[in-house]
This record gives sequence, C-alpha cells and structure tokens, in this order.
Amino acid sequence: MTLSPTPRSTVRRGKARVETDRAVLHEILDAGLVCHLAVVVDGTPVVLPTGYGRDGDVLYLHGSTGARTMREASAGAPVCVAVTHVDGVVYARSSFHHSMNYRSAVVHGVAVPAADPEHALRVLTEHLAPGSWDHARRPAPRELAATAVLALDLTEASVKVRTGPPGDDEADVEANTAWAGVLPLRAVWGEPLPASDLAVPPHVLSRAR
Amino acid sequence: MTLSPTPRSTVRRGKARVETDRAVLHEILDAGLVCHLAVVVDGTPVVLPTGYGRDGDVLYLHGSTGARTMREASAGAPVCVAVTHVDGVVYARSSFHHSMNYRSAVVHGVAVPAADPEHALRVLTEHLAPGSWDHARRPAPRELAATAVLALDLTEASVKVRTGPPGDDEADVEANTAWAGVLPLRAVWGEPLPASDLAVPPHVLSRAR
Repeated sequence: MTLSPTPRSTVRRGKARVETDRAVLHEILDAGLVCHLAVVVDGTPVVLPTGYGRDGDVLYLHGSTGARTMREASAGAPVCVAVTHVDGVVYARSSFHHSMNYRSAVVHGVAVPAADPEHALRVLTEHLAPGSWDHARRPAPRELAATAVLALDLTEASVKVRTGPPGDDEADVEANTAWAGVLPLRAVWGEPLPASDLAVPPHVLSRAR
Repeated sequence: MTLSPTPRSTVRRGKARVETDRAVLHEILDAGLVCHLAVVVDGTPVVLPTGYGRDGDVLYLHGSTGARTMREASAGAPVCVAVTHVDGVVYARSSFHHSMNYRSAVVHGVAVPAADPEHALRVLTEHLAPGSWDHARRPAPRELAATAVLALDLTEASVKVRTGPPGDDEADVEANTAWAGVLPLRAVWGEPLPASDLAVPPHVLSRAR
C-alpha cells in the first residue's frame, strides 16, 4: 500500500529522500514515543510534545483535556503531527554537506474524538508500555473522563528518510583534507528502576534487553 | 536568570513540572539535534524537523531556502519551536498514571534572517558536529546564498521537566498488584562509520566515547 500525496503532503524539498511505502510510515510511528502536535491558536502556531499510539491507519493522540493543543484539536482545528528519529550525524568534507541521518513522518488532518476511548487508551498504553494494559489497573470511569483521546486518520502523510554517507562535492573528496563519515546515534533502554518491591515483570525486562 | 512567562508561554498544565531557570532551557536546547518548527500556512499548521544551534539567547534555525516552514518563517510568520528529550517510560500501578520522564522546551516568536549568516552557520555546524567548523571546508559564497538561516530570540520560552517515579494513587500502592518503576531511555553514539580513508579525528572520536 502506498502513500498518495495531496498538495499539502507532497514533499517539495529533498525528493530523493521521500518514501512512499505505507509500511515505512507505520515503522517510523511505531518506533517513537512522542509526536510533536501542532495547531493554530489565535493565528499563531503552537507545537507541543504529545503521546500517541497507532492502530492500523489511525493515530491516537493523548493528552490532558486542558492542554491547549488537545483542546483546539478536539474542537476540529486542523492539526499537523511530526515524528522524527535522528539516526546519526553525517560529517562531510565541507560544512555545507554536513547533515543528519533521520526518519521523519508528518501527518496532516483533522482529529476527532476517539469513537471508543477505552480501545484508544489501550492502544496508547500498549504503545508507551507494551504489556501494561493487562498488567496494571485499567482506567476507572473518572479517569477515562479526564483524558482527551483523539483519532487522526493517516491518509494525508509524508515520509522522509536519509541514510548513508555524506554527499560531498567531488573536488572536496579529491582534496582529501577532511574526515567524512557517519556517527550513528541510537536510543537504548537502561536498567529498570523499580518503585515497587515486586519483581520486574517480563514485559518490562524483555524491553530493556 | 529566569524565564519570564508571557500569556503564550505560560504553561497551563502540569505546573509542578515547570522550570523557570534559563540555564535549564539552554541545557535542553544544547542537548538536542533537531527541533520541531511550526508555522501557519494557509490557516493550517505545518510542523517539520529542523536543524538548529544556540548562541546565548538566540536560536539559529537552518534549512533549505525552499522549505515551506523556513520560507514562511523568513517572511515574518510567527513560529513555535519545540525541543523534547524522552528520558524514560514511567510504569505505574494503573494505566492512568503511566507517563514519560522528559525534558521539553517550547519557544514562541518571530524569526528574522540572521544578521551574520556565516556566524550563524558556524553556530549551527558546531552544534551538529562540534569541531567540524575548523576541520571541514568552510561554506563558499554560493553555499551561503543557498542556505536560509534564521534567528529566533529565546525571550518567550517555557520549559517542562518530569523526573522520578510514578505518581500512583495510594490505593493502588497498597493493593501492590502491579510493578511500578521507570525504564530509562537515553541516546548513545555508536562507532564512527568512515566514508574517508583519513583516520577518525579526535573531535569525532571524543564524541563517540
């Protein structure tokens, strides 16, 4: 299945880095923990880090019912959501060609209240902490009421990916006066820090390994 | 020096997590590689990952002269910039109190073309790849002309930080039926991947260690 760009989701810069495979969009979203959710408030942009989870081609967004971005989005304001992973710094022979390796997804649309908030919260919880929905106490009615969960369709999305070595000018390669290469960057889990005297359960242990 | 909140940069949710020390703002910005830059285009928000660097209380933003967000921002449209670090997943006894440990900075303002683009590019290069400005070939005039560098004052900024264990309800702590704690997450450098036959220079090696 491919991404069908609209005018708004058509990438204008760096077309060589555009991915049109929907599976890549899903991978990028699934690999992140926070998205950056942008809305317009009084004519000016507001962007805030926001928790999310994905179910098929629906992105669930999750925040306090009082957060400004969530409030505006709940009221039907257009939103834009970005998830970005930096995979490395690209050192080039020229400062101009220095770059980053990255995976980036940007989604445009209008979010709507999740039709089934409990299902949406399950998706969000399992995205943040796989295994926690079955392990921890489930949301009470008053907790469900205090949480805004929005659903954003992934129809209008674009993906850019940069991988590999620097794209130096030939003259700089021939001059051979500066090192070039990639310094990879990745996110790693540390050892669990228990706040409880119970043994660290397998769903947490297996993530940290 | 403290952050003096304006109505727009006053954090409304989670006041306990607000930091008002400007040094914390600087630390959060200095620890990141990409920001998320939001502008309004035709009434709808657009947010894109963007390279940046900081010099004192000025944030330099860097992108192609053709990128839509940079183009709108260059023309004086209000911008919002967010830099977020996720430091861990907070596992709580209830799904409701699951959370993340994070450090987040959000800046509002109007960006202006950098008065001294070469200085700004030096700041951006040294932020992305410390040591590269002196090591690699400096920008040629045509390269300087192809790069939009904007300066955004850090006057209107807010910072939120969450650290520590979950904030569970007492009844859930007493029930003691679910594990709780923090699974730390951090970004680590890998081994340099050379694209050049020159030895990996100290400014790259020291970063990876």
